[in-house]
Amino acid sequence: MTTKTIRLLMPQWQGGNNPNYSFGAELLAWLAPNNDQPLIHVPVRPYEGIPLQNEHGMYGRTQLLQQLEAAEHLIQAHQPDRIIMFGGDCLVEQAPFAYLNEKYDGELGLIWIDAHSDLVRYTGYDNGHTLPLGNLLGEGDQEFAKHVKVPLKPENVFIAGLAVATEEENKFIAEAFEAQGITVVEHDTEMIERLGIRTAGTAELASSLDSIKTWIQERNIKHLAVHLDLDVLDPQAFRSLLFAKPYEPYLVSPSGTMQFPQLLHLLKELSEETEVVGLGITEHTPWDAINLKNLLAEIPILNT
Amino acid sequence: MTTKTIRLLMPQWQGGNNPNYSFGAELLAWLAPNNDQPLIHVPVRPYEGIPLQNEHGMYGRTQLLQQLEAAEHLIQAHQPDRIIMFGGDCLVEQAPFAYLNEKYDGELGLIWIDAHSDLVRYTGYDNGHTLPLGNLLGEGDQEFAKHVKVPLKPENVFIAGLAVATEEENKFIAEAFEAQGITVVEHDTEMIERLGIRTAGTAELASSLDSIKTWIQERNIKHLAVHLDLDVLDPQAFRSLLFAKPYEPYLVSPSGTMQFPQLLHLLKELSEETEVVGLGITEHTPWDAINLKNLLAEIPILNT
Repeated sequence: MTTKTIRLLMPQWQGGNNPNYSFGAELLAWLAPNNDQPLIHVPVRPYEGIPLQNEHGMYGRTQLLQQLEAAEHLIQAHQPDRIIMFGGDCLVEQAPFAYLNEKYDGELGLIWIDAHSDLVRYTGYDNGHTLPLGNLLGEGDQEFAKHVKVPLKPENVFIAGLAVATEEENKFIAEAFEAQGITVVEHDTEMIERLGIRTAGTAELASSLDSIKTWIQERNIKHLAVHLDLDVLDPQAFRSLLFAKPYEPYLVSPSGTMQFPQLLHLLKELSEETEVVGLGITEHTPWDAINLKNLLAEIPILNT
Repeated sequence: MTTKTIRLLMPQWQGGNNPNYSFGAELLAWLAPNNDQPLIHVPVRPYEGIPLQNEHGMYGRTQLLQQLEAAEHLIQAHQPDRIIMFGGDCLVEQAPFAYLNEKYDGELGLIWIDAHSDLVRYTGYDNGHTLPLGNLLGEGDQEFAKHVKVPLKPENVFIAGLAVATEEENKFIAEAFEAQGITVVEHDTEMIERLGIRTAGTAELASSLDSIKTWIQERNIKHLAVHLDLDVLDPQAFRSLLFAKPYEPYLVSPSGTMQFPQLLHLLKELSEETEVVGLGITEHTPWDAINLKNLLAEIPILNT
């Protein structure tokens, strides 16, 4: 029996309220190796200069829900065994991973490789990409969570590469949040503890992947989905991140510290340990390519 | 009568002895706005892991000459009125600009927007991309210069955005050159003075483009070619440059200081002042995209 793998390109930007994510998705899909995996475009409403509305605590809620449903329908139509998702903001992960968990009888393992755990709402920073993992666990935002027919088991989730802010950064972040009126009902760390989700930081994983291998064995994970938010990478090594905009350092959120060789090693080891059936790559923000594309778009001789 | 414009994609890397330039060219062409200008691929021998030979003071001389001839033949076959060149290292500029100067009766104007003047040989750093402008003036390297049927007039050349090293940098560069055994028979600045080439730095151009406008008027330039080496940009604003490799700052050569808005303004003004018939863009080195592409190429689920 052959395994059917599909690629989805979902240039969703509304979840981060940042149109740059759309081009990041296009470039990401273009950079991927060519093979016979079909590339399916999930329709996303492009940014047309109109600011998103804040609808019940989420910018662009209606568009995000419509796009979630479009992704669900496309996946249902194709009935794949494996899904690759090129995002777009982190919220693109919901449809493929919810489908895979249902397909694999609620026993899907999910490794969330990300500088952030994407579990909770930050009231005042009302962007949907703060809680896709929360939704997949049946928490997060109720309107999104109810689309997840079989919520993932928290004990089948592992968060890898979580950035740990220094005390100084925490103080800075707390002040920045306060200044912007951002409040948090339950912190990521609190939810992680309440649900018993396993985690390991970049430094720990650099010395050993044993914590992940043990988790895969103990939980008997036969099918694994991998979420990769590129912001797990050190922004000095990879500058195509929200946090690495030229001349505008973004300091509200701690940034990743992982290097490329470590990330590749981790991804390869996961495929050695179990069957990887899902991969989502998100939050690609290629500033240089965006700026160069914008320049080229305005050079007269290229537009005659 | 319609104007025939062609685009050439020439992923030449041998002129800088750096295979990363090939992918930079591909990405550059992909980022350009779509229209009905045909995109013609100039055959370039890809890097296959074999180091280039130093042939009479130039790495990959034979390949570079073959590729120059391929570009010449393609241009001759198409007989365009205007040429856009997506490089690749700076040496890609020779074929299109030599053709255009011949076509426009030896009266082509050429603005060389670059942190470096690309005029002379650095013995010991034996890379062809140090002297394309020298070749176009009938100087440079004899084997290349003899392909230029009608050399450009030095008084029709303007170098814009030349990086001026500080005294400290000059000392550093001199020491680095000495350590690497690099010697220079005639310095860029000496050739600029000998030939009477006009120049203006980024700071001067930020306050006024009068020096360029005066040059266009005085020289009565009816047809202008524009060379844009992306390294004229400030590497903090644009990191897809040889000089901005993550964790490996390249210090031997001074870097550019231009910002995107200034560059765009300059390019637009040139099209206002005269007819732009040539545009070459070179030395694109998109580290993030290269590293991401290399990562994707090795992720098991993307390669099954």
